[in-house]
Amino acid sequence: MGRAESRTGVWVVGAFGSLGTTTIAGVQAIVRGLVPPTGVVSEDPAFHGLGLPPLERLVFGGHEIRRDSLVESAQRITRENGSIEPSWTETLRPDLERTSARIVPGVVAGGGAAIEALGDGWCPAAERTARESVNRLVADIEAFQRESALDRVVVVNVASTEPQCETGEATQDLEILERHLDSAEPNSFRPGTLYAYAALQSRAAFVNFTASTSCLCPAIEQLARNRGVPYFGNDGKTGETLVKSGLAPLFRLRRLEVLSWIGYNVLGNRDGRVLAADENKKSKIGTKDAVVPSILGYPLRTHVGIDYVESLGDNKVAWDYVHFRGFLGHPMAMQFIWQGCDSILAAPLVIDLVRFADHALQRGESGPMRHLASYFKSPIHVTEHDLYRQFEWLLDYARSHAQQSR
Amino acid sequence: MGRAESRTGVWVVGAFGSLGTTTIAGVQAIVRGLVPPTGVVSEDPAFHGLGLPPLERLVFGGHEIRRDSLVESAQRITRENGSIEPSWTETLRPDLERTSARIVPGVVAGGGAAIEALGDGWCPAAERTARESVNRLVADIEAFQRESALDRVVVVNVASTEPQCETGEATQDLEILERHLDSAEPNSFRPGTLYAYAALQSRAAFVNFTASTSCLCPAIEQLARNRGVPYFGNDGKTGETLVKSGLAPLFRLRRLEVLSWIGYNVLGNRDGRVLAADENKKSKIGTKDAVVPSILGYPLRTHVGIDYVESLGDNKVAWDYVHFRGFLGHPMAMQFIWQGCDSILAAPLVIDLVRFADHALQRGESGPMRHLASYFKSPIHVTEHDLYRQFEWLLDYARSHAQQSR
Amino acid sequence: MGRAESRTGVWVVGAFGSLGTTTIAGVQAIVRGLVPPTGVVSEDPAFHGLGLPPLERLVFGGHEIRRDSLVESAQRITRENGSIEPSWTETLRPDLERTSARIVPGVVAGGGAAIEALGDGWCPAAERTARESVNRLVADIEAFQRESALDRVVVVNVASTEPQCETGEATQDLEILERHLDSAEPNSFRPGTLYAYAALQSRAAFVNFTASTSCLCPAIEQLARNRGVPYFGNDGKTGETLVKSGLAPLFRLRRLEVLSWIGYNVLGNRDGRVLAADENKKSKIGTKDAVVPSILGYPLRTHVGIDYVESLGDNKVAWDYVHFRGFLGHPMAMQFIWQGCDSILAAPLVIDLVRFADHALQRGESGPMRHLASYFKSPIHVTEHDLYRQFEWLLDYARSHAQQSR
Amino acid sequence: MGRAESRTGVWVVGAFGSLGTTTIAGVQAIVRGLVPPTGVVSEDPAFHGLGLPPLERLVFGGHEIRRDSLVESAQRITRENGSIEPSWTETLRPDLERTSARIVPGVVAGGGAAIEALGDGWCPAAERTARESVNRLVADIEAFQRESALDRVVVVNVASTEPQCETGEATQDLEILERHLDSAEPNSFRPGTLYAYAALQSRAAFVNFTASTSCLCPAIEQLARNRGVPYFGNDGKTGETLVKSGLAPLFRLRRLEVLSWIGYNVLGNRDGRVLAADENKKSKIGTKDAVVPSILGYPLRTHVGIDYVESLGDNKVAWDYVHFRGFLGHPMAMQFIWQGCDSILAAPLVIDLVRFADHALQRGESGPMRHLASYFKSPIHVTEHDLYRQFEWLLDYARSHAQQSR
Repeated sequence: MGRAESRTGVWVVGAFGSLGTTTIAGVQAIVRGLVPPTGVVSEDPAFHGLGLPPLERLVFGGHEIRRDSLVESAQRITRENGSIEPSWTETLRPDLERTSARIVPGVVAGGGAAIEALGDGWCPAAERTARESVNRLVADIEAFQRESALDRVVVVNVASTEPQCETGEATQDLEILERHLDSAEPNSFRPGTLYAYAALQSRAAFVNFTASTSCLCPAIEQLARNRGVPYFGNDGKTGETLVKSGLAPLFRLRRLEVLSWIGYNVLGNRDGRVLAADENKKSKIGTKDAVVPSILGYPLRTHVGIDYVESLGDNKVAWDYVHFRGFLGHPMAMQFIWQGCDSILAAPLVIDLVRFADHALQRGESGPMRHLASYFKSPIHVTEHDLYRQFEWLLDYARSHAQQSR
Repeated sequence: MGRAESRTGVWVVGAFGSLGTTTIAGVQAIVRGLVPPTGVVSEDPAFHGLGLPPLERLVFGGHEIRRDSLVESAQRITRENGSIEPSWTETLRPDLERTSARIVPGVVAGGGAAIEALGDGWCPAAERTARESVNRLVADIEAFQRESALDRVVVVNVASTEPQCETGEATQDLEILERHLDSAEPNSFRPGTLYAYAALQSRAAFVNFTASTSCLCPAIEQLARNRGVPYFGNDGKTGETLVKSGLAPLFRLRRLEVLSWIGYNVLGNRDGRVLAADENKKSKIGTKDAVVPSILGYPLRTHVGIDYVESLGDNKVAWDYVHFRGFLGHPMAMQFIWQGCDSILAAPLVIDLVRFADHALQRGESGPMRHLASYFKSPIHVTEHDLYRQFEWLLDYARSHAQQSR
Repeated sequence: MGRAESRTGVWVVGAFGSLGTTTIAGVQAIVRGLVPPTGVVSEDPAFHGLGLPPLERLVFGGHEIRRDSLVESAQRITRENGSIEPSWTETLRPDLERTSARIVPGVVAGGGAAIEALGDGWCPAAERTARESVNRLVADIEAFQRESALDRVVVVNVASTEPQCETGEATQDLEILERHLDSAEPNSFRPGTLYAYAALQSRAAFVNFTASTSCLCPAIEQLARNRGVPYFGNDGKTGETLVKSGLAPLFRLRRLEVLSWIGYNVLGNRDGRVLAADENKKSKIGTKDAVVPSILGYPLRTHVGIDYVESLGDNKVAWDYVHFRGFLGHPMAMQFIWQGCDSILAAPLVIDLVRFADHALQRGESGPMRHLASYFKSPIHVTEHDLYRQFEWLLDYARSHAQQSR
Repeated sequence: MGRAESRTGVWVVGAFGSLGTTTIAGVQAIVRGLVPPTGVVSEDPAFHGLGLPPLERLVFGGHEIRRDSLVESAQRITRENGSIEPSWTETLRPDLERTSARIVPGVVAGGGAAIEALGDGWCPAAERTARESVNRLVADIEAFQRESALDRVVVVNVASTEPQCETGEATQDLEILERHLDSAEPNSFRPGTLYAYAALQSRAAFVNFTASTSCLCPAIEQLARNRGVPYFGNDGKTGETLVKSGLAPLFRLRRLEVLSWIGYNVLGNRDGRVLAADENKKSKIGTKDAVVPSILGYPLRTHVGIDYVESLGDNKVAWDYVHFRGFLGHPMAMQFIWQGCDSILAAPLVIDLVRFADHALQRGESGPMRHLASYFKSPIHVTEHDLYRQFEWLLDYARSHAQQSR
């Protein structure tokens, strides 16, 4: 079977969420010719040589913790921020309904109070050990692959950010993790760990688009190595951090000395509500705060605030104040304001990541996909945060792979 | 005489202006250990291999259209924006007085109404032909080189922006220019053309830091080729345009479709007053407006406003509004506000340019110094406006020259 | 017939425009219970005692220069800025169609190039004198009143801003105006003059919501006095100027010395396109620029820019930079950014103005309605621009009239 | 002795701080004719009829917790934000030195960890009971009055914000307070309570410019009543809250429905450092957060953040984002950025408050001076937060008192 005819499964953890729905409905809208693929970087001619899976060859399914449907979620998005036109939902209704049928209950226990509050009893409560939960998740993914006749599956986590993962032994060592899975209750793990485990166990590529550090803990990375599959994360770089990673190089290049870089984010979607819980916020801020000092190469006062402002819905606003010193030590300032729609910014990145991960999977690559660093606030095993340098890696990857493909 | 002991002359056109004074006093303050060289890019280790002239080997002189002194100009800067500490002016008084003595009358006629209004009768009025004026300017530069025992001279134009240069035949063809110099009155040329002619005639390298297009017109470039000296311009990239050229690549990279990019600049220094004259503003806006479409690669609505707000003094504020479309065509926006001190932003670039030009001169390079594109809003013979790509050219230049020096 | 049962006609000049449509559809949406009357000041309990006409007693008709329909205009608004929900247009379709039938051709000749370009030949071209045109307009208004069985009519001009009115004799003296009407071609007048003349001739109250100074020129005011009807204008205070008139009092109150107050407006609707024509912009800027110095009581550097940015549609963005001096002469700054939807901001003001004008008409008041000053950028015969003081006048008016009504 | 010749003592708690020094040096600079009284509201002609004490009749002294001098403090201010010109400090040196000699050790124990860390051992540590401390403070004030031959004394607290006052019995009831003063250690009270007690005990008027709620607790108000002296507070309204209280009325007046009003403040002075301690921040945020809902008259999402950014020094920057709904429920937004110098904004208010308090004291008024509400973020016994209405009270007070004076 030729490449163009192969089918790639995209298993979305958090599929009924705003980002999950925007991604799935968005791909279908592009495929049906309703909109052009604005913001989809992998459509750039620079990547044509890679033979990435065409959008119409992507098949979606996923895990979710609440009973819902993509049609209703799309309509909610229309009401809240108008990013999905009502007529599209009507046109796509058959696609969305078909996909909704492939979205099944995930794991909610262990996600922390804020996430558990989102659950509605859809996820089975009777499992006695984490192993039972994981086996169910694996079975879900394998059924997806079999029933949809998929050549490969990429699992992408777009669920809400979990509280920081305690660095217990189980997350540090695969052997201990395996033992604990057998004996411990499901809620002694963060769901992120179980989803990641299940993905790798199914030999799916795994992408953690969330800030949850539970997903790519050392034990999980060991498992990925053992299974020989590619993976990457954490925390999609969509808004304020994206701008930071594109602007800080300017200050470095011109040797302007940044004294303080202070940023505040307000947003009102479900993700924001979860982040309003202090324990979940900490994960997020950790990944956002390291970017600027790393690019500039010296320590400075930074601050990243995130606050939940319900009226904004899926829109987010960020204000950054950069206090810097120029020639003769003279103080000056730059401010920026970023007003974007969270899911709209994130969805095309999810599409890119899935396609690049599929490419790696197909070529038998394994380990962390460092060439995807430009997509993440906190790319694992990567210290480079300069957006343009990170992106060069992706271009280099594309160039070298395209040559090999000839 | 070894390289470290060679002496480079820096001939500043517009030497008593805010930028001229900040550059000269700033270099002397760094040399005297009063401040570190913040913002001076050429101090970066990346350029150590080039053997650029150390700051203490730079000797300043220049042309000016008003009677003034560096001490008084420095004191005015202290009052207006506080960027020069009063105690520094006292410490540097002997240096500043010595340099002031090397600043002599230039050419004011032909500069347009706004510039001519700045003149105070210091410049000689009796010259009957432009050739007479040019010969005087050449004599000034040659006397500077001789009397200060300089190995090389770099002429840098930091005067106010002139009205756009009419593309008469004289600026298009060197032969015609030469004939006109002999016959036409001084004010039938923009002063910028005469300064540039004199610089090249003296075999000095020439850098046009202003937006005046009169300096590097085709006839002058012909002359530079004939004389075999290096030159470059136009219009130092210090503030809003700098940020644009560093931010627009982010939108390109992420395939976010910019619909409109609108910017307003307010500033209150002498340069601002000159720009308030519509004829002078046009030169400036032309160079600022091309940057974004060139980086993005498609046409879009842009607008650049410049208004004179006297109360701001040398401080400038720019507000940019970027209206863009993301995934599913959803509209979003980014704004930035840049609050900087014009001379403080520009002076270290002048220092860099002088040092790089001196390096080229010493090595016998000639023609346009394209590797300096990152310093200019409108780098001649260059279509690349992406700040980071432009800067790569400079790093490449440094790497290849450093190797040759070994 | 009791007051509650009386019917008020609202004759909208520019009825198919974004503001006209938003006003008409908005009133109908409120009447049908689809939305609450957010932003409608006249709904405030402070005005209950006045017995203003209830919204369901307002009957709309109007003049327009292009063939169109309220349903199509509403759908266009939905697409452009989403401020009218598609389902509302469906619910209101019968109301909108009934009202569309009462919208008839106005006058386009004499409106200047930008406005004339909007015309599509709907307005009759054969009229030889302005008197003929005026007679037609009068007949339209009187037919409206008769056919809809209206007790009173208020004419409100929400058309695009015309170029400034030349202060020819005809606009300065009613007698001369009358003579010219009889002899001159229609296009020797600005349409605004003809609409206002027709309104007053029909004994309708007249409100000029636009910046066009042609409407309430001295000759027209004479006519209003002769006819004994109330009138007011000019230029609804909706956005940047509203904020200015609410913020400048703070600086006055605290004796902070404002050095410069600079503002830039970008907007993309039809009104913006007309304003992009320099001759039309001048009218607008004139009314916006006087506000701050008048409130502060001293001259200062002000600037108001307006630029047309098509991609914004009916949304407008304003950035204001206020440079001020506090204790010890220390300079400080305040900036604000206003992001609003033009028609949404203006429509409730139009509703208020119509109701207050109707009240004045019913009570037999005549002359300029100074108590409505808070609604206008340039309230005629009023030098007070402080928003809060202006609004006190309206409250005083309401208090004194409510007492009289008891 | 006539009024013009009477002398008013101003006893400043926190006299060597940035605000204390700016106030004292500022008054002296105005008296010496170095600067005009910009920002001093009490200089407005509206208050001429009150016979407020002329600035040259104000004599300063105060309490402080660190050994320092006004000259050194002024020089620190010059370095940090340039708001005091170096030449002024030289001119005023004799005045400043004379005043410094009247600044004596206060009370540091009980101020919470952040404030205690500022102490340097200057304040006596050996006092066994709070009564001993209070008696010392009283003696200081009385000595000041006697030695400087003052007719009246006003005590104004400009020290750093203390942690919130626990509502123990002692602060609720004067009788219990008195008993505790006798028996408890000094650090069982917040210093604010002791300063206020001492002021009132000395029959000085008392103004609490800080957010510390310890000063005007119920027990202290009882004492003020008993002593028959005027007092007021809390928390001078200088920046973001000032703007809020001047802008929120605009939204109320136009019936625009504010959904969320979110503000962030960054500042870098000593006050900011103290506020960085969570316990101290709570006092401050409490007073800032009530303003908007109170003016609008309905609950809404508000948030006020304060973060310490050392590099800013005494400059503060605030960004506010106002999310509101207009006609048809359409969402819109306003943002403002306030960039001011804290002490420069506050000092003229302190001068006003002292003069108005002196006026009340001289006329034998007692109790809370509600007519000063416009000066405070959290005016006690006042629910009105609309800046303009509050200011009307002051104008009314001035009008009625001026009449009485005739």
